[in-house]
Amino acid sequence: MQDPEAPPDLNTDFIRQLSIDCVIFGYREGELHVLVPKLIFPGDIYALPGGFIRQTESIDDAARRILEGRTGIRDIYLDQFRVFGGTDRDNRSHLEEVMQSRPGGAAGAEWIAQNLEWLTQRFISIGYYALVDMAKVIPARTEIDATLAWYPLTGLPAMMMDHQHIVEAALLTLRRQLDEQLIGFNLLPGKFTMKELRLLYEAVYDRPFARNNFQKKILDLDVLERLEKQYTGASNRAPYLYRFRRGVAGEGTL
Amino acid sequence: MQDPEAPPDLNTDFIRQLSIDCVIFGYREGELHVLVPKLIFPGDIYALPGGFIRQTESIDDAARRILEGRTGIRDIYLDQFRVFGGTDRDNRSHLEEVMQSRPGGAAGAEWIAQNLEWLTQRFISIGYYALVDMAKVIPARTEIDATLAWYPLTGLPAMMMDHQHIVEAALLTLRRQLDEQLIGFNLLPGKFTMKELRLLYEAVYDRPFARNNFQKKILDLDVLERLEKQYTGASNRAPYLYRFRRGVAGEGTL
Repeated sequence: MQDPEAPPDLNTDFIRQLSIDCVIFGYREGELHVLVPKLIFPGDIYALPGGFIRQTESIDDAARRILEGRTGIRDIYLDQFRVFGGTDRDNRSHLEEVMQSRPGGAAGAEWIAQNLEWLTQRFISIGYYALVDMAKVIPARTEIDATLAWYPLTGLPAMMMDHQHIVEAALLTLRRQLDEQLIGFNLLPGKFTMKELRLLYEAVYDRPFARNNFQKKILDLDVLERLEKQYTGASNRAPYLYRFRRGVAGEGTL
Repeated sequence: MQDPEAPPDLNTDFIRQLSIDCVIFGYREGELHVLVPKLIFPGDIYALPGGFIRQTESIDDAARRILEGRTGIRDIYLDQFRVFGGTDRDNRSHLEEVMQSRPGGAAGAEWIAQNLEWLTQRFISIGYYALVDMAKVIPARTEIDATLAWYPLTGLPAMMMDHQHIVEAALLTLRRQLDEQLIGFNLLPGKFTMKELRLLYEAVYDRPFARNNFQKKILDLDVLERLEKQYTGASNRAPYLYRFRRGVAGEGTL
């Protein structure tokens, strides 16, 4: 009988040469961030939260498991956006560095050596992305992460391999899908002002939106319901509050 | 030295458990079709044109090679749109049928038997799609295709595994991306009328578009240049001709 505590056997339990990398965008106060762990291996290796696909799970289940295991994040909208499949995608140089220089990591190095051939092969990676409210999500690092932190999109650390490119591709998808995924992302409070919504768009697109044009564009999406004015006690120019109409599309897919 | 004519060794030359399936939409006279081969194996097996990824080629190169090898189609806009990664995606039942009943196909059956374990594993498939002008593309079947034909979207043959679902997912992507890929698809003549463009949209969306609303929507995309009227010799209500403006986005990515 298989020991449930035994480490997985990469050669048989996982699909070879296929990985998943997650781009987790975090939104807070008009600014977009990305969740990036620093691995425990020497050399300050930053990499997107990623992992492999078990033979017994779907790719969506794998992405969910990887994200939760690496960050503690669960129950969010997470979707695949693109496959990265160039011939130059392998981990060999990083793993050789680990083997040669990991302090006191003989056991780990031995384990990696046993599986090195598997890990150093070319990997095709399926990119998944999410956009979360940073106030609602508390990342929890695991044993292979030295640190796990949000970095502003404009100040990301240098990441291994093509992970910077994966972030850029995720951002393009986010911009293209923001209109239709607005509700699924669940980023705004139950009631919000048009300005709060505009600040979100400005963060995602990294550019200002003219107030009137933005309001027209958003109302044309036909997903909002206008509520009472937000009473501030200060002025009769209080802004209207809005909420998402029930029954419109945009629920998360995972 | 490797014999270049030798059949590829599935166990070493290709990435395991990963395939590519191509949904080739064909447009002609207001109707959308899909290119579907019938395999030479017994049982009238219809399947999307697909194949595997060599260790030495990128996934985009693999998709191009597969499409050209299976259909003779080259130099078209082809892009990945989604990965299909459920745990139930395997070919076992189809291949067992092939082994047991292929008439006179002992050699082929033996070859399949030798590689059966590889082929009957679970496969994760990367979906690629294209939209082509049926008048410009002449499909050419290869030795594993008994037939290769265009079927109207509403009259597709029953296909193996989840291929019908893959077509439906491709159609959703096509609808979502039609505005921005309009030029890249290269479906219309150099000059065209607003009605010709509207017929294309109606075919893709399978619904009518109101003439005036459609014209406004398209002109708002800001990719068209209005030319002279189309002289028909019959009336002064001749329609204007349009062409795509140079220098706007929408070129193919492959």
